[in-house]
Amino acid sequence: MSNAREEQPVNAEHEAVGTPEPCVVGVDFGTLSGRAVVVRVRDGAELGTAEHGYRHAVLDRELPDGTPLPPDWALQVPSDYIDVLRHAVPEALTAAGVRPDQVIGVGTDFTACTVLPVLADGTPLCELPGLVDRPHAYVKLWRHHAAQAQADRINALAAERKEAWLERYGGRISSEWEFAKALQLLEEDPEIYRRTERWVEAADWIVWRLCGTYVRNACTAGYKGQLQDGSYPSRAYLAALNPDFADFVTGKLEHPIGQLGDCAGRLTAEAAAWTGLPEGIAVCVGNVDAHVTAPAAGAVEPGRMVAIMGTSTCHVMSSDRHGAVPGMCGVVDGGILPGLWGYEAGQSGVGDIFGWFVRTGFPAAYAEEAAALGRDPHEHLTALAAGQRVGEHGLVALDWHSGNRSVLVDHDLSGVVVGQTLSTRPEDIYRALLEATAFGTRTIIDAFEAAGVPVAELIIAGGLTKNALLMQIYADVTRRPLGVIGSTQGPALGAAMHAAVAAGAYADIRAAADAMGRADRGVYQPDPERAAAYDRLYAEYRLLHDYFGRGANDVMHRLRRIRTEATPSS
Amino acid sequence: MSNAREEQPVNAEHEAVGTPEPCVVGVDFGTLSGRAVVVRVRDGAELGTAEHGYRHAVLDRELPDGTPLPPDWALQVPSDYIDVLRHAVPEALTAAGVRPDQVIGVGTDFTACTVLPVLADGTPLCELPGLVDRPHAYVKLWRHHAAQAQADRINALAAERKEAWLERYGGRISSEWEFAKALQLLEEDPEIYRRTERWVEAADWIVWRLCGTYVRNACTAGYKGQLQDGSYPSRAYLAALNPDFADFVTGKLEHPIGQLGDCAGRLTAEAAAWTGLPEGIAVCVGNVDAHVTAPAAGAVEPGRMVAIMGTSTCHVMSSDRHGAVPGMCGVVDGGILPGLWGYEAGQSGVGDIFGWFVRTGFPAAYAEEAAALGRDPHEHLTALAAGQRVGEHGLVALDWHSGNRSVLVDHDLSGVVVGQTLSTRPEDIYRALLEATAFGTRTIIDAFEAAGVPVAELIIAGGLTKNALLMQIYADVTRRPLGVIGSTQGPALGAAMHAAVAAGAYADIRAAADAMGRADRGVYQPDPERAAAYDRLYAEYRLLHDYFGRGANDVMHRLRRIRTEATPSS
Repeated sequence: MSNAREEQPVNAEHEAVGTPEPCVVGVDFGTLSGRAVVVRVRDGAELGTAEHGYRHAVLDRELPDGTPLPPDWALQVPSDYIDVLRHAVPEALTAAGVRPDQVIGVGTDFTACTVLPVLADGTPLCELPGLVDRPHAYVKLWRHHAAQAQADRINALAAERKEAWLERYGGRISSEWEFAKALQLLEEDPEIYRRTERWVEAADWIVWRLCGTYVRNACTAGYKGQLQDGSYPSRAYLAALNPDFADFVTGKLEHPIGQLGDCAGRLTAEAAAWTGLPEGIAVCVGNVDAHVTAPAAGAVEPGRMVAIMGTSTCHVMSSDRHGAVPGMCGVVDGGILPGLWGYEAGQSGVGDIFGWFVRTGFPAAYAEEAAALGRDPHEHLTALAAGQRVGEHGLVALDWHSGNRSVLVDHDLSGVVVGQTLSTRPEDIYRALLEATAFGTRTIIDAFEAAGVPVAELIIAGGLTKNALLMQIYADVTRRPLGVIGSTQGPALGAAMHAAVAAGAYADIRAAADAMGRADRGVYQPDPERAAAYDRLYAEYRLLHDYFGRGANDVMHRLRRIRTEATPSS
Repeated sequence: MSNAREEQPVNAEHEAVGTPEPCVVGVDFGTLSGRAVVVRVRDGAELGTAEHGYRHAVLDRELPDGTPLPPDWALQVPSDYIDVLRHAVPEALTAAGVRPDQVIGVGTDFTACTVLPVLADGTPLCELPGLVDRPHAYVKLWRHHAAQAQADRINALAAERKEAWLERYGGRISSEWEFAKALQLLEEDPEIYRRTERWVEAADWIVWRLCGTYVRNACTAGYKGQLQDGSYPSRAYLAALNPDFADFVTGKLEHPIGQLGDCAGRLTAEAAAWTGLPEGIAVCVGNVDAHVTAPAAGAVEPGRMVAIMGTSTCHVMSSDRHGAVPGMCGVVDGGILPGLWGYEAGQSGVGDIFGWFVRTGFPAAYAEEAAALGRDPHEHLTALAAGQRVGEHGLVALDWHSGNRSVLVDHDLSGVVVGQTLSTRPEDIYRALLEATAFGTRTIIDAFEAAGVPVAELIIAGGLTKNALLMQIYADVTRRPLGVIGSTQGPALGAAMHAAVAAGAYADIRAAADAMGRADRGVYQPDPERAAAYDRLYAEYRLLHDYFGRGANDVMHRLRRIRTEATPSS
């Protein structure tokens, strides 16, 4: 499940001159695997990397013992994360040709909100005897979408009570976050809730495991835990949601906050044995994969939006302007960089939708042709679609196959394709899906600008940067220059940069970003003619977006209800 | 391209007793092939059949010489029809073991409106020197959909002038019919229009070829040629459409009418040589494939709707009530059976949509599994979908991939699927498409009943009867008992029955239907629980149907316009 490779020739050069330089290790915990990267402190050069897949991947149909899961669940197994430390870190060191004693610090980043119930000593409840068959004892992955009913109540009550924090989250909090998932836990398995001593972000749990100290990072506390201006939602509010939820903050959630780049503690002997790193080096406060990518891409100036495009997309941007952007995920003071408002928005499904299409809609004849041409299915469909003029396929789609995060914050929405005829080909639908996600990003940018928060340019990170057609579509649709991060390991690089700050190698993350971050800016420029053609399709997208997404026709919610009622297990 | 088979053992029995009985031959001209069937006059037993594919199939991308065709065109080559007479008829005779001198008459049926320009002697214009590269010189197949602009003007002007005939066609005539296609011919290729001496239905052209006499059949004249109460649309109306169109009826269209079951003439020596049938036997007036199926299924009573389900669906029903059914294709006095109002409605795409889905959305892994199980793709998807409860897939679709005939009469509409998630599988979409076509049929039935024309039961004919899941869905969705025609060659059997009447073996088509027609009635009964579940999905279908189909959001028309503008050839 692991694979390691030497990233760049720079290390050979450095070995040659015989002057071992200080390095840091960044570990990025993704949805299906973790990646470790060894980075040179001086210039951010990535010397070696290794990846380790989670043995249990995502539990979305059943627990490891076969216990079935309802629709919309997505769990993980915490020991899979430890395995990443045990395999990927030593392999990355070997690949880099770096001696352990060169490493001065380790930093991590995680998907969020990925959250788990633990005892006061950090032991996950799913590891306790007798609880292996209890779904609520496991890690709830960010894309666990079964707490929508709780999120709806959280939002309705907050709106009714005019809770001040609500506008900091674009007017709606997500079912993916700490409060909705915890309330689901309380209401569906009160015993597990009772036995939960800490409701902890996986981003913090892994740091706890590395240094033995629980520090709650400021980023997830603000973006996923509704901590604003030093306060959580009030006890009175929580009691009104559910009397048994009144003590959730005081009893299970609140904890001293660590700032991004702070040193959380020192690497324990146990963690040193797992990783092969020196005991006692600096362990950085936890980070979130999306947010930590911004400094990795050198995006330390206002208005430079970083879109991390993989299975889903996260948009992060710092700004000197404060605005209540409807449907954004959140705005947190210093949430990405000290001294600026950090904004987050997102699209729940992007690469996931393209993957779904290839899995379910790629015909045998196409598979044969792709194989003959040595292309993978995505390359093949992209090549077939690339020659089309804008609108030639006659389609418009809504990219809600995994729900809608921004700007509608509704995970019960679903996908739509309009305009199919008997002449419609797979590459037509594929291109319409690529475009739909670009329209989704433009919808988010338009919401920022309408709220007085300018978005000047885009920098793209993540696996989808390799699709040049997709990148050009985003430039054309958004009418903005599009840059590309200069690393294939953006989050891990960002985590390593924070480790360098925690180890004292740089004064702050801006200084680290200047030295270690990188992006090629303006690689794709919008084409005026295509942009004008896309304006017409975008107008259709927005019309359907508002019709299906804002209550004019609530068919998607009704279909989901009908589906749930008809599903045999329910 | 031909294949023949002996249909039933009855002939062997009849040979055994050594008493050669009178037979008739029916020839059904479909979209891709023609089928001949030899039928015993006494009881309608089908003794042998043969099929012959059209060499040029459907010309929808280019003419035989490579001349490209614009989108939405669909042409055919008339000599392909003659080849059916030359191959399928003699092969069917051989398969039946019937001596030619047993055959007392021949009848035909055709797709409609399939129409061609000819000289006064019946020579197709596309066979004239110098015209082989002129698209408008060819047969325009029923599904030629490039005359929508003309149809729109025909309808708008008729509504403005309050033309009395309009309500006989549900308030809108179709772009598929004689007037729209002829007006397109005039406006796009005036020279071919000028050289057209007769604008003739293929149904009548083939009879002309068989007996040397042009007789215009009452069915297509009424349903496709707008002949009502003995009159065509007026000269003044035609002149208002286009001054050069004023003499269309008098100069090219009007012609003595033959009633269904009449003898059009006697088989010529030339046609006897093609077919191997005796010169001089009765040749019946032309029929239309859908309408002729009603008596073949024994549907000679009011309220028994016959749905011929293949690539598209035609609904035909006789009734003693006259109603102006919005969006029906037409109501013609005696259009199916003497003495009753004959109603026709239709769905432009049914089996075509399922075929499109299998062609474009059936993944390689499914193809492998289907092959291993010895199933064709439709059987495989049907088997996978059959176990689902109603609504379990969470989808609703609009079956407009080939436009909408009834009740919206708009071929510029297109398909929609709503509700896709990352869990949606090919069999889910396939089932949603099956259901969408059933909702389309229910929409038609509801329009009949709302206009005071009761629909008591359904009898299904055509290739899709073999899909038991589809049949049950139709029974459940329409809440009506569903019968199945007792022949796999319904149209050809119906044509043969009319030949028996033309030859004098029966007094009229009712008598022939009593003796020769057959159906198993009520094979599928609606299940109350599933029917109730489908009511909820049907409500969603109707909401989307009216939103996309009645102008609330004209996105489909705009997408088609954008597509046309973006297509390189335009």
